Amino acid sequence: MTALSRSIVRFALLLAAIIGMTETAYAEDGYDLWLRYRTQATTSTHRVPTIEARGDTATFRAATEELRRGAALFGTSTPTILLATADDRAVAALHLPLATLGDEGYRVGRVTLGNRRVLLITANTDRGVLYGSFALLRHLQTGGSLDRIDLTSTPRVKLRVLNHWDNLDGVVERGYAGASLWDWWTLPDFHDPRYADYARANASIGINGTVLNNVNAKADSLTAPYIAKAAALADVFRPYGIKVYLSARFSAPIELGGLKTADPLDPQVAAWWKAKSDEIYRSIPDFGGFLVKANSEGQPGPRDYHRSHADGANMLAAAVRPHGGIVMWRAFVYAETDPEDRAKQAYTEFKPLDGQFAPNVIVQVKNGAIDFQPREPFHPLFGAMPKTPLMIEFQITKEYLGFATHLAYLGPLFAETLGSETMQRPGETVADVVDGSVEGHTLTGMAGVANIGRDRDWAGSTFNQANWYAFGRMAWDPTLGAAPVAREWAAMTFAPSPGIVDPVVAMMMGSREAVVDYMTPLGLAHVMATGHHYGPGPWIADLKRPEWNPVYYHRADKAGIGFDRTRTGSNAVAQYAPALARRLADPATTPERALLWFHHVPWDRRMASGRSLWAEMVHDYDSGVAYVADMSRKWDALKLDIDAERWAKTATYLAVQQREAQWWRDASLAYWMSVNGRALPAGTAPPAHDLAWYKAQRFPYAPGNPQ
Amino acid sequence: MTALSRSIVRFALLLAAIIGMTETAYAEDGYDLWLRYRTQATTSTHRVPTIEARGDTATFRAATEELRRGAALFGTSTPTILLATADDRAVAALHLPLATLGDEGYRVGRVTLGNRRVLLITANTDRGVLYGSFALLRHLQTGGSLDRIDLTSTPRVKLRVLNHWDNLDGVVERGYAGASLWDWWTLPDFHDPRYADYARANASIGINGTVLNNVNAKADSLTAPYIAKAAALADVFRPYGIKVYLSARFSAPIELGGLKTADPLDPQVAAWWKAKSDEIYRSIPDFGGFLVKANSEGQPGPRDYHRSHADGANMLAAAVRPHGGIVMWRAFVYAETDPEDRAKQAYTEFKPLDGQFAPNVIVQVKNGAIDFQPREPFHPLFGAMPKTPLMIEFQITKEYLGFATHLAYLGPLFAETLGSETMQRPGETVADVVDGSVEGHTLTGMAGVANIGRDRDWAGSTFNQANWYAFGRMAWDPTLGAAPVAREWAAMTFAPSPGIVDPVVAMMMGSREAVVDYMTPLGLAHVMATGHHYGPGPWIADLKRPEWNPVYYHRADKAGIGFDRTRTGSNAVAQYAPALARRLADPATTPERALLWFHHVPWDRRMASGRSLWAEMVHDYDSGVAYVADMSRKWDALKLDIDAERWAKTATYLAVQQREAQWWRDASLAYWMSVNGRALPAGTAPPAHDLAWYKAQRFPYAPGNPQ
Repeated sequence: MTALSRSIVRFALLLAAIIGMTETAYAEDGYDLWLRYRTQATTSTHRVPTIEARGDTATFRAATEELRRGAALFGTSTPTILLATADDRAVAALHLPLATLGDEGYRVGRVTLGNRRVLLITANTDRGVLYGSFALLRHLQTGGSLDRIDLTSTPRVKLRVLNHWDNLDGVVERGYAGASLWDWWTLPDFHDPRYADYARANASIGINGTVLNNVNAKADSLTAPYIAKAAALADVFRPYGIKVYLSARFSAPIELGGLKTADPLDPQVAAWWKAKSDEIYRSIPDFGGFLVKANSEGQPGPRDYHRSHADGANMLAAAVRPHGGIVMWRAFVYAETDPEDRAKQAYTEFKPLDGQFAPNVIVQVKNGAIDFQPREPFHPLFGAMPKTPLMIEFQITKEYLGFATHLAYLGPLFAETLGSETMQRPGETVADVVDGSVEGHTLTGMAGVANIGRDRDWAGSTFNQANWYAFGRMAWDPTLGAAPVAREWAAMTFAPSPGIVDPVVAMMMGSREAVVDYMTPLGLAHVMATGHHYGPGPWIADLKRPEWNPVYYHRADKAGIGFDRTRTGSNAVAQYAPALARRLADPATTPERALLWFHHVPWDRRMASGRSLWAEMVHDYDSGVAYVADMSRKWDALKLDIDAERWAKTATYLAVQQREAQWWRDASLAYWMSVNGRALPAGTAPPAHDLAWYKAQRFPYAPGNPQ
Repeated sequence: MTALSRSIVRFALLLAAIIGMTETAYAEDGYDLWLRYRTQATTSTHRVPTIEARGDTATFRAATEELRRGAALFGTSTPTILLATADDRAVAALHLPLATLGDEGYRVGRVTLGNRRVLLITANTDRGVLYGSFALLRHLQTGGSLDRIDLTSTPRVKLRVLNHWDNLDGVVERGYAGASLWDWWTLPDFHDPRYADYARANASIGINGTVLNNVNAKADSLTAPYIAKAAALADVFRPYGIKVYLSARFSAPIELGGLKTADPLDPQVAAWWKAKSDEIYRSIPDFGGFLVKANSEGQPGPRDYHRSHADGANMLAAAVRPHGGIVMWRAFVYAETDPEDRAKQAYTEFKPLDGQFAPNVIVQVKNGAIDFQPREPFHPLFGAMPKTPLMIEFQITKEYLGFATHLAYLGPLFAETLGSETMQRPGETVADVVDGSVEGHTLTGMAGVANIGRDRDWAGSTFNQANWYAFGRMAWDPTLGAAPVAREWAAMTFAPSPGIVDPVVAMMMGSREAVVDYMTPLGLAHVMATGHHYGPGPWIADLKRPEWNPVYYHRADKAGIGFDRTRTGSNAVAQYAPALARRLADPATTPERALLWFHHVPWDRRMASGRSLWAEMVHDYDSGVAYVADMSRKWDALKLDIDAERWAKTATYLAVQQREAQWWRDASLAYWMSVNGRALPAGTAPPAHDLAWYKAQRFPYAPGNPQ
């Protein structure tokens, strides 16, 4: 060898040693989420592409930096990547049809500028350019090619917002991924690097807003020190197109302002909120506005003063309106008084208010009428308040779906609700209501209760990250479909190889149905244990309020099971559009998956399968348990394809889920048998323990359940 | 170029690209603690040394793996590293003086085995070999050479134990580094990789035990599910020589066993504990034993049944004795009844019990007689119970020293206490009591209340890691000295360059004294705000129990300030050895740093400096504030020498500390002036606000203060 090649060899060996070191130190612990910009197998070499940003805003810099992070994805033949807004002279000269992109859409494609072929990422705003940059990276991460690339997209929903149920003491209500991401104690001084990574992750899937604090709000979050802390986060998030919102405690004028009332029609109260809003906007000029949970589960609200929800919302809306802020007012209300049927209360209270809300108010409605169950029919308010913008609220964190340890991909849940036909207007789906397309609302939105905490992998498990991802992608476009989103996520999170993506997506797609099967088959709901909602508790009947008890929801007796919501019962079906109400009024025309939600039916009722209802329930429980076993088999087969740390954690969690699915199935069957006195179908395994054993289980420190 | 060299160049470029990637991805976020095995500047090349382990235990494998992690530290001329215990035939043939190493000491040196020169790490046990391996790595990390290497060390203290004040709901009492490291919810199934890294870090500094749960214990930690969870942790820790202990709630026989009493002399109670211990040892064969906080701050204990602490401790000791377990019984007792002087209570209760404890009981005594203040005189029990093994308890977490945000290196605090002369026997220091050398106790120990949580950098800040490090090193050898330990830590944590180590150590060494100066100068104590102990509250006088109030401790009035603990006061000085008591009885022979701890003295009292006491206090407050400014200057000068992420966080925290030191100084002076009616010495800056402003400060969500 020549001296040169000898020195090259020494250099290469040194490099190899250094790589060995850093590889050891750098574990695949899930921190990178789906933003893993590893070299693809098809790309043997790469170089950092030339990136030309025609703009110097913080958002342009964020886009440029993100593309640099993704350098490994680009081949050597990548043309110059040009980032420019539509008003750039060279871009304008191309006469591209960019007007329809609005202020967040993007277009990514190859164009010729002068005599240069470039890869142009353009939009009407720098935020659009950022979204386009993430779209380009996603395209490459999912195996896309740069030849004839043409990515054009505009979000169909305006407000794509995470709701953090994070308390100021760091405990996250219904959080299963560690403490709150917000370290309020060291804010506003210390900007944990995670805050920027959180913003990157959200921007990559189009989320443009975040409500920092729990809807069960403390007034303290509106004090000067906490406004300063929120402002520090807003400063970090702003370059990524993310606005900060706060949950507002309706009684804050009393608690902080020393007023005697929080009556929304009291001028002093209105003035207090006006002054408070002005104070917030001085620190956070692009503050998004307030989210309010009022007169629900003990929270204060306008009804304490015999005012309507519209009175309350409009008063707050007036306070933020001069600054361009909005109010997201939740329709999740119950327990003001003992209800006839908890499922009916939101409709009963809000439907009459249609048309009474100020233009900068949007009413936030949960996907179903109870509370984030594994399956609920869509909420009857969707389509029933045409004069009011309604945003849909999903729960990304799995309060009722096995916490962080159960693998349950929620894409199908989101898609099922969004795709439901309201039958209020021809062809109208919930998605049409949410994106405002039928009634022409421009204030539209989708909220997701975040599953994010300080755990290193953010969401408590790798597969929980998929729910955050799917929420963002489907908020951008509610029609995307659960499977395509799962494929994207799997390719980005693991690798864009069919040998990995196919089995992973196969695991994911049936996983939520499996949870329904082993927890709440055939339309059952709210049979979880008290308070923490972990594990089965269908026998619970001794809680103070009727609608806190699982027996209130399933109404099982010797003769049958299910909640009669027809005319012979609560008549909640009448809250749907007449055509749908008629269909749901009859067990024969009610989808079996919602049967026990709407009807009390005999255990012997014949199902479509030919089995009795009782046998069908047993069959569903067993199917759910079997599905988890099948997921484990699929995951085991991927052991060599997935990095060790992420593989092992999911494998462990699948084993937990297997045990707990069996527990759910066994405990539920033991209880139903104690009620209906029936034997199990032949060949069915009996529960492992007697009912008393299941009833005796206690989980005093279950997470996510602040006392 | 030849084809070969061309392909080498391509290979090298590819490697360079990959390195670029991993370097981006791998941030210096503090996770690696002092176990940073980066290549030293003096080592231009390295290779993985040959490691030959003559043993196949999990501990041998841990040692081998650790040396592999540290491969970058070794030069190309490193001889084979041989790991073997003293009973290895080849090692035995060397006739090394290994017997004195005991079962944890080690010897690392070059030897000739047959015709081979090897680097031998040997000990009487595999644990000793592991400690020797870490010692070798530390030697290289701190710039040591392998030429003529000779590392021999034996721990002077047997139990080197962390106390985690971690609650089962994940909240850490007095924790300022995030939630509990123990994710009880996912245990025993999921073994977070952090658990093993925690064990590595502890083993590297010689810690050999950990009490998993808070001394304010819940009985639940003794139930079967939690024993299984503790056993899972014990399995992870065992290869690293770390035993698991549990805090035991004394009333558990009532709460879990359904007994009517927890009277330690009741045979049923003793039988319950015996059965419970047997149950624990079935899952954790090397379970260390129990730590008990009894009859203190509301905890149950033997005195509820008119039994002594010895009765309680000995009953538990009998339960674990057949398994080789021990009981650590805390002497921190107060508030049973309103005290004459809180500082006297532990001595009053425990001194008469000397000689009454079973042989496997060790009494755990806090470093001082109050509660982990920035400075306390050593606890009078040290040296006063010669027939009883006493272990010392330090607080590593900074409950009273500014939480995680203040830089306060506690090495000098540890060393000051350990080096204090008891004057009970000629030359006897607290360290002599702790290491048992005077009375010949073999059960010896040092406990540190951990500052560890789920924060990425474990301890809430880089410099807090130094306190964990110093505790472990000084528990191994209480005579090491604070400065040498700081030098080790700084070299390992940053780099072994004098340009970094010198200023970092200079910052550290005076930092605790600075906290004393700006919080509690001249022997003041417990003047912090209520509950959370964050910030100044010397004016607080309205709490229910007298000894909860800062005014109880400082007793400032128009005439003077300080707690008279001489014969004219509580006569606490009489609890010290007569010669020392005589010295402390007279302000003239009391060290000025402890003056106000022992004496109530006039504001005009002349100090050694020539200043009046009042002027001296002002001077001390100002010195403390100035020291923080000086630390900031030193840190700013290191900006180019420290990685960006760690540098920035410390810089931010120093700015917080600066603001808060000033607040402490200003609030304290404003209050003292309101009491003594005096003006500030000429040229002294007045407080920024009036006293009412300082009194009005509220911190409702201060961390570490579970309600």
